[in-house]
Amino acid sequence: MNEVHRLIKEKIEEKKKGTVELLQKLVQEDSVRGNEYKAQAVIIEKCRELGMELDIWEVKEEEVIDHPLFRCDRKSFKGNPNLVAIRKGSGEGRSLILNGHIDVVPEGDKADWKYDPYSGKVEGGKLYGRGSTDMKGGTSALLLAIEVINDLDIPLKGDIIFQSVIEEESGGTGTLAALARGYKADGAIIPEPTNMKIFPKQQGSMWFRVVVKGKAAHGGTRYEGVNAIDHAYTVISALKDLEVERNKQIDDPLYKNVPIPLPINIGKIESGKWPSSVPDLAMIEGRVGVAPWETMDKVEREVEQCLTALSKVDGWFENHPVEIEWFGGRWQPSDLELDHPIMDGLKTSFERVMEHPPVIEASPWGTDGGILSKGGGIPVVVFGPGTTEVAHDSNEYIELDRVFQAAEILSLFIIDWSNDGA
Amino acid sequence: MNEVHRLIKEKIEEKKKGTVELLQKLVQEDSVRGNEYKAQAVIIEKCRELGMELDIWEVKEEEVIDHPLFRCDRKSFKGNPNLVAIRKGSGEGRSLILNGHIDVVPEGDKADWKYDPYSGKVEGGKLYGRGSTDMKGGTSALLLAIEVINDLDIPLKGDIIFQSVIEEESGGTGTLAALARGYKADGAIIPEPTNMKIFPKQQGSMWFRVVVKGKAAHGGTRYEGVNAIDHAYTVISALKDLEVERNKQIDDPLYKNVPIPLPINIGKIESGKWPSSVPDLAMIEGRVGVAPWETMDKVEREVEQCLTALSKVDGWFENHPVEIEWFGGRWQPSDLELDHPIMDGLKTSFERVMEHPPVIEASPWGTDGGILSKGGGIPVVVFGPGTTEVAHDSNEYIELDRVFQAAEILSLFIIDWSNDGA
Repeated sequence: MNEVHRLIKEKIEEKKKGTVELLQKLVQEDSVRGNEYKAQAVIIEKCRELGMELDIWEVKEEEVIDHPLFRCDRKSFKGNPNLVAIRKGSGEGRSLILNGHIDVVPEGDKADWKYDPYSGKVEGGKLYGRGSTDMKGGTSALLLAIEVINDLDIPLKGDIIFQSVIEEESGGTGTLAALARGYKADGAIIPEPTNMKIFPKQQGSMWFRVVVKGKAAHGGTRYEGVNAIDHAYTVISALKDLEVERNKQIDDPLYKNVPIPLPINIGKIESGKWPSSVPDLAMIEGRVGVAPWETMDKVEREVEQCLTALSKVDGWFENHPVEIEWFGGRWQPSDLELDHPIMDGLKTSFERVMEHPPVIEASPWGTDGGILSKGGGIPVVVFGPGTTEVAHDSNEYIELDRVFQAAEILSLFIIDWSNDGA
Repeated sequence: MNEVHRLIKEKIEEKKKGTVELLQKLVQEDSVRGNEYKAQAVIIEKCRELGMELDIWEVKEEEVIDHPLFRCDRKSFKGNPNLVAIRKGSGEGRSLILNGHIDVVPEGDKADWKYDPYSGKVEGGKLYGRGSTDMKGGTSALLLAIEVINDLDIPLKGDIIFQSVIEEESGGTGTLAALARGYKADGAIIPEPTNMKIFPKQQGSMWFRVVVKGKAAHGGTRYEGVNAIDHAYTVISALKDLEVERNKQIDDPLYKNVPIPLPINIGKIESGKWPSSVPDLAMIEGRVGVAPWETMDKVEREVEQCLTALSKVDGWFENHPVEIEWFGGRWQPSDLELDHPIMDGLKTSFERVMEHPPVIEASPWGTDGGILSKGGGIPVVVFGPGTTEVAHDSNEYIELDRVFQAAEILSLFIIDWSNDGA
């Protein structure tokens, strides 16, 4: 362990309490879509304290609407700003984007939570709450890394461009707006919850909505109607078969430990209004995973062909074809070569801290990395301290030691990345 | 055809236009639950014109809440009155309740309707619109029968107690309130849409809500969650099996032409909030048919046993049992002896008009008849001009000739019933 590393370790030890408090504050502000501003204010305060140059703005649709990667059904971003905070380098170094999203998914059934989902309760080395792992814990690690470098007065040549963005969970308009505003860099790290694995490839994903028809009737003569819920199940079964088919074809070794590399998730169903009526419409919403090497067009075609083929399974669909809509969120996949310098740098820093080689895998979900790489040509790696398994789940938590280890790895990486590229 | 019958026929011919206009007005007033008042006003105006004694009142929960047959989740009846309109007899005759409900079920998907669901459009001898068949057409036939008897100055000994009630579609609180207010009679006719068949027996029904548990997860790692929608389908399959089992046991000849005498209808499903999350809860609502000879307790037990047995089909249910709630609507079954005088009277009038014997069957759905018979000991027959198949369906219509034929049959029946019982 060299002197700088030793100092970083010491400094992190000293900053642990403050970092936990910051993360608690962030978790306690319920920043579901449309309500990001309070948590964002906590981040802004911290960045101001770190002496960073702040760019705080409300995204306007006209900034992003013409971008080919724009995909968003949100009507207004007013009151919930995006943030870019810059720590300027001395010049000629490699610049780095450090990107975290401030939005969280809804908490689900509160009864399934041991503690209030916005408690930030710490117990047994874990901090609990919606967003702890996805990804306020990762953002806290980023801010701790910057704080440590600042406090130790370690000079950096390249710019550090910290981004706290809205809308990641709904398709990345926050990151897209930052890109459209001109923020680019020589590399980017996104500390989404990877269990400390390094993901040079990320699965993309798209949302879909399928409308299935039935025929209404009185429930007492239900045999005169056609229940849309039954046919929705036929659609779900077909999508399950398509998922099996798509995953059979994957032989990328980075996916070897992922049970279903490209899942098709059924996230929502709604049908019927009245217990005594046969429902004549059913609506299914879901998410289909896109492989790093796939285009979204290809996946759209595969799903649409699967739904068209339903008429062979059940004659009903021949006269009552389902309707599909590709709505809302859309996360581009991302695909970085394994020997890119940013990968080398991150692996080296990881080994210095963890004393074993990192696990390199492909992520089973999309991130804003797809926007940075496909939209900005920026090499992106996803690596973070959170626990993948509890993201979007009840009793979401993060192991605090992982936050500190990630900050230590990131500090070392930032220093090397920023200064070696001169 | 006797002289009175000939005069009735003539008078109905003369009143056709006015009756169609009345029915149109009724259909044009969208009287879904909570919005019954405008259609009710049309009825009130007509009853006033017929010189009937009116009792118009807003149901108050305290009038009905202690009744063992009360079952209602509606919070307020304010502004949407119940109506009883009486044509007093000269005395010593048999009294008769003529009961129709003013509420209609929601229209479903408007795109499935050829005409606006509240148009009242007349085409090819049919009048189209939500409620035309169920049961504003039947109510119009009742009012036409009374009008004809009035206009011809035919004396009646017994009282005619016309009821236009709210809440039938949600469990019969309107009829229950009329019963609790003291309205009883020696017999009752309810002109629900029976395709001109006579139903001395009616199937009862109950609503249920089942909550199914899953385990939330990120859709990209959906294999770490348990999708509540999948388990909801296991529940639906089990209920389908129970339906088959229950219907196997039925050998009442009145049900011989009914494909599924006691259906279990799945009327609604809701699960999930987010396409990218695995839903942790699913809610199913439906309706289970109760045989004329069954008690509701027995049926509750059968459904609950079926759901408890799910743990044998799928281990998930052992640790995550479903929850069932018997909520909202509940329609008592009704069971009248086939040789009751009201049956004889109605059959005779039917044959005089139609010149062939009526079809006698058991209804595949509950009506307010269960409340009148079980709650008031009133012999009830359900017989009406509407088309069963289109009740609660899109493009609901009624054949206008059936309305006039029903009015003719009812006029003859009312005269005989009222006067022969002296």
